[in-house]
Amino acid sequence: MSASCDLAEARRLDAADELAPLRERFVLDERDVVYLAGNSLGRLPRAAVTATERAVREGWGRRLIRGWNEGWIDAPRSLGEKIAGVVGARADEVLVAETTSIDLFKLAAAALAARPGRRRIVTDALNFPSDLYVLQGLVRLLGDRHELVSVPSRDGVTIAEVDLAAAVDATTALVVLSHVSFISAFLYDLARVTELVHHCGALVLWDLSHSAGAVPVELESSGADLAVGCTYKYLNGGPGAPAFLYVRRDLQRELEQPLFGWLGHAEPFAFEAAYRPAPDLKRFCVSTPPVLSLLAMEPGVDLVLEAGVDRLRTKSVEQSELLLTLADAWLAPVGVELASPRDPEQRGSHVALRHPEAWRINRALLEPTPGAPTVIADFRAPDAIRLGIAPLYTTFQEVWLAADRLRQVVASREYERFSAERPLVT
Amino acid sequence: MSASCDLAEARRLDAADELAPLRERFVLDERDVVYLAGNSLGRLPRAAVTATERAVREGWGRRLIRGWNEGWIDAPRSLGEKIAGVVGARADEVLVAETTSIDLFKLAAAALAARPGRRRIVTDALNFPSDLYVLQGLVRLLGDRHELVSVPSRDGVTIAEVDLAAAVDATTALVVLSHVSFISAFLYDLARVTELVHHCGALVLWDLSHSAGAVPVELESSGADLAVGCTYKYLNGGPGAPAFLYVRRDLQRELEQPLFGWLGHAEPFAFEAAYRPAPDLKRFCVSTPPVLSLLAMEPGVDLVLEAGVDRLRTKSVEQSELLLTLADAWLAPVGVELASPRDPEQRGSHVALRHPEAWRINRALLEPTPGAPTVIADFRAPDAIRLGIAPLYTTFQEVWLAADRLRQVVASREYERFSAERPLVT
Repeated sequence: MSASCDLAEARRLDAADELAPLRERFVLDERDVVYLAGNSLGRLPRAAVTATERAVREGWGRRLIRGWNEGWIDAPRSLGEKIAGVVGARADEVLVAETTSIDLFKLAAAALAARPGRRRIVTDALNFPSDLYVLQGLVRLLGDRHELVSVPSRDGVTIAEVDLAAAVDATTALVVLSHVSFISAFLYDLARVTELVHHCGALVLWDLSHSAGAVPVELESSGADLAVGCTYKYLNGGPGAPAFLYVRRDLQRELEQPLFGWLGHAEPFAFEAAYRPAPDLKRFCVSTPPVLSLLAMEPGVDLVLEAGVDRLRTKSVEQSELLLTLADAWLAPVGVELASPRDPEQRGSHVALRHPEAWRINRALLEPTPGAPTVIADFRAPDAIRLGIAPLYTTFQEVWLAADRLRQVVASREYERFSAERPLVT
Repeated sequence: MSASCDLAEARRLDAADELAPLRERFVLDERDVVYLAGNSLGRLPRAAVTATERAVREGWGRRLIRGWNEGWIDAPRSLGEKIAGVVGARADEVLVAETTSIDLFKLAAAALAARPGRRRIVTDALNFPSDLYVLQGLVRLLGDRHELVSVPSRDGVTIAEVDLAAAVDATTALVVLSHVSFISAFLYDLARVTELVHHCGALVLWDLSHSAGAVPVELESSGADLAVGCTYKYLNGGPGAPAFLYVRRDLQRELEQPLFGWLGHAEPFAFEAAYRPAPDLKRFCVSTPPVLSLLAMEPGVDLVLEAGVDRLRTKSVEQSELLLTLADAWLAPVGVELASPRDPEQRGSHVALRHPEAWRINRALLEPTPGAPTVIADFRAPDAIRLGIAPLYTTFQEVWLAADRLRQVVASREYERFSAERPLVT
């Protein structure tokens, strides 16, 4: 792809894209918006509008408590089965429950209990801070008997596998990593790292929030132990939709998670006074799920399954490569640096760019401006802008327009009319 | 009210009921259904249909990630402020977060850490089993250094305050009780028990799931320390809607809950590597909330505030007393026993009845039957049927019809045509 790619060429790429028709399965009310934040919140599938209406009017409104017998109680498992198909797991290894942080807490605690003699927990400097917080809270709750080791990044963008290997040893109980890191989009080799961790007798817990639905994930074939992930990014599950968790089949009876709740009980409706964990994956359930947010999730997952993760990945790499080409040609000259790995094999489905004025630049992209598209990307402190490629609905034209708009905003210093003060959310 | 109350009299009571017009604010598609399970899942407010449509189409569909800046991120606090008005707390003492079990875990763990020398946790035999499970899991995670003491019930229906007082001592860190118990509806005197617990220097954690929105709760005036509660029962928040938690203002900085997550951080969007809890109630947040289920909750809470808890309570007592009168006249003679306190001052807003064939009787009530209303109540193992009074929409006529139908089903042994086998949910 040449650096001289023009808008017409981007449109030709869209015309040739076999996944392009799937875009129309999403609500696209504002056609002048370039949405490159599907890595943060996936777009609304049209079928999710119908699904939520049905859940509200028919389920809650008419069936009332009978709804529990008519699908609600089974949804965490049936949705888990579908997500298993997205992350290369077996149907009985994934379920939907609570949130990514809560699920991480459950699985990390279960893993530490399963490696009682080992005191070390390994993570990395690129991991999502909230994942680090969960581990910090757990270590504290357990009486500060564990050591939390964070593998540094040499370049702020990647983690060297040798550095990770050096940190994992015979005292290591658990390794907790994001498969794709939330800012740089650095992508681990899941199979190789899993092998490395197993070589030391430790367990590995993958956070798939930024890879599920965007990057092939081979949990079963890699022998990964544990995983959690978010459903509202590339799975299009809706804002704050419940998370999913994965426990390898042979570990399910062995591991005990500490958040005992009625849905994890072997017989939830026996209302026994003593907790008895279910003999299978269900023991990792805790609470009554938020039904409306739960049922809204299914159409987004269905769309990923319909497209197929491999085809999504191919398109994602093509679009990301176009973005990098344009960034090299147009953005590097005005001081915008690449903050993601250049090698697509090391990169997930978003691209991070870096500029000292990233906050104000992102603010300018969002501002409705005559003659320019509104570009929705996101800012991550201190100086990154993330551009998310969600191949179910992202077009080559959008990628082109975003790069073009970025060039305009930075070259013209259009961002200077915005305040540098940051509100709560970005 | 005489035992000869006929249907016409029940209708006259409805005609005279000043809260009756609020019933029309709920979706009532199936007028032949008698719904007495609002203690399990509150009915769908009409305004919640609009609120969820707006959240899906306008929020998720059009505003996309911008929705976070346009109300979503503030909703846990703004909804908490409204619920504070329902449970007698100050606006900055309640927030909506996660689930009842997860919130119970957070607050119980925080309380135990604040009473480090004390090993005893007191609860009672009528408490919701899932609450017991949470405590069992926490005790286990903390290395089995705490003793979980359950105050027995002498009659299976109430807990004697003297028995509770005898169990709480100088070694007690925490007392965890349901304000209204889930089967018998036994209602504690919250102020008196709080005082009793404080007298021993322990903390008290109330589960308000079966009282919030149905019974006056005076958290502030009683000086209660901690509380959690469900929003999908008398608050009509929708199936599995997120829970609420309360922490008395002066305890908020002192207590540290162990589920560290990004929303509890002092600066969630700074993405710092180390967790620093927010200086206020926000430290009890953990995860991104399920937005659709969260926003669906507001209309139900608004209706409770509009009616006023005192007026709801007055009507609830009148309706429960009618039910008891009819039960004495019609049901006791056919072997259905009262399994709730007779004194309304000791009873929440549902009435439990007991019969060896409760499961099949409840099944028969649910079965569409020509010439008879479908009565939706619920069964609780081993032998209870719960009839929930939700005065926002329950009518006196419904109470009458339910009692009449129960009499018919039991007297005619109509239930014998149903299997005694129980499916997962009831």
